[in-house]
Amino acid sequence: MCKIDISRLSFNHMTAKKYDLYSLVDTCSHLGIRYVGMWRHKIAEVGLEQAANLLQAYGIRASSLCRGGMFPASNEEEFADHIDDNKRAIEEAAYIDAEVLVLVCGPAADKDLSKARYMVEKGIDALLPYARSCGIRLGIEPMHPVFASDRSVIVTMEQANDLIDKFNDEYLGLVLDTFHIWWDPKIDEQIRRAAGRILGFHVNDYPRVVDRSPLVAREMMGKGVIDIRRIRIAVESAGYMGPIEVEIFNDQLWNMPLSELLSYTKESFLQHV
Amino acid sequence: MCKIDISRLSFNHMTAKKYDLYSLVDTCSHLGIRYVGMWRHKIAEVGLEQAANLLQAYGIRASSLCRGGMFPASNEEEFADHIDDNKRAIEEAAYIDAEVLVLVCGPAADKDLSKARYMVEKGIDALLPYARSCGIRLGIEPMHPVFASDRSVIVTMEQANDLIDKFNDEYLGLVLDTFHIWWDPKIDEQIRRAAGRILGFHVNDYPRVVDRSPLVAREMMGKGVIDIRRIRIAVESAGYMGPIEVEIFNDQLWNMPLSELLSYTKESFLQHV
Repeated sequence: MCKIDISRLSFNHMTAKKYDLYSLVDTCSHLGIRYVGMWRHKIAEVGLEQAANLLQAYGIRASSLCRGGMFPASNEEEFADHIDDNKRAIEEAAYIDAEVLVLVCGPAADKDLSKARYMVEKGIDALLPYARSCGIRLGIEPMHPVFASDRSVIVTMEQANDLIDKFNDEYLGLVLDTFHIWWDPKIDEQIRRAAGRILGFHVNDYPRVVDRSPLVAREMMGKGVIDIRRIRIAVESAGYMGPIEVEIFNDQLWNMPLSELLSYTKESFLQHV
Repeated sequence: MCKIDISRLSFNHMTAKKYDLYSLVDTCSHLGIRYVGMWRHKIAEVGLEQAANLLQAYGIRASSLCRGGMFPASNEEEFADHIDDNKRAIEEAAYIDAEVLVLVCGPAADKDLSKARYMVEKGIDALLPYARSCGIRLGIEPMHPVFASDRSVIVTMEQANDLIDKFNDEYLGLVLDTFHIWWDPKIDEQIRRAAGRILGFHVNDYPRVVDRSPLVAREMMGKGVIDIRRIRIAVESAGYMGPIEVEIFNDQLWNMPLSELLSYTKESFLQHV
């Protein structure tokens, strides 16, 4: 049956974005959830030191920190600013002992996707030595092509694998998210190719019809068209046995009381992941 | 400068979906537009014979008929119905002397994308002899992956090219649409690979942020992030010199008076395509 173990569940903060880190960590702890996916702006609400203390006090691990990336820029100065910001993200990831810094690589500054993709490569090249010195691995998250205009010019696992091949550095890998990769005709071959480089795995579902802004169109596992278990097993076959983050941007879920949402998440995780 | 000639402009009926074929053809004719992209449900409003007569009377060509496809089914009977419906679409395309029948290949009936993709192949195989006997070419339109759940499991040019390689039949080719292909890291290589098989080309723009249902997120050329001219020149370099359809699903444009919309379209076409 290949059932999933609840010990691998990580709850991404953005799935309950109205709540602060105190409530999140406390409620996760009560429900036996051992990992959370962290976001920089949610850490900033409580302060970095306090965030690290909270995790430690509750014995909860940060499965990832979101996000670094956003490399493309319209000029050299802006590009340098992006690199500086990424260095701060690496420092924060190290401070909270996150397993990986997620790279959402950024959109093009103009209409030139090739140039933007080149800047992503240049940005990763500039960051890797610092990431290594801080002990933080960088995980490229290929995003669904619907976000190519505003979030990431890296839209397929094949692109991410190609980039990782170029660097061949143990501090660079992929973060996979079912919403972003489920449609890809090369999903199986590229997950296999990513063996040993998968640094994170996010789950959520894709609606039968995207009738709203795609940013908030993600669904709870089981509510959409993705065969999530099949993908999870493929990801495990490629050697990834780490935490699995539930990351869902969805207005209805955002309006649920936290403990109810977390219980619903656990149940859906066990049934569909 | 590689400027486009207005003689290649085709106006797709769905860009002005509130208007009937009479108004469309009449207004196109007044503005010197020589092609229209046709839809089966808009033909049904006036009747097939009348539609053909109208085109002939005004000397306007149908650059394409939309749509065939929608192959995947949950059982054999449903699949057979889909094939029958496609045969009627081929007959209609022949009756109005359309240059190509566009195949929007359909979503999966369940969560199994591989099975759905196999049914697309089986469906094309079942249709090709009939298409040949009617003198109608079939154009696979790879759709943006955001529509993988409700419109097409064929989401990349590479998939379409692979399928076309399998059949190697002059009656099977591709229809390219800037909205659907602009994000693809392999856009240049796959357009080159499609040389001699491109049966249609649609233009429209992609917004910087998709803040609404992606179905109606298309923009007038020049209003978004796509380097449309670059793609048009690539498509021409691959040998396609036929009509270029402006196909835009957009509420604001749907509310414009027809002649104003057509003038705006002509101007944007000349400037950005």
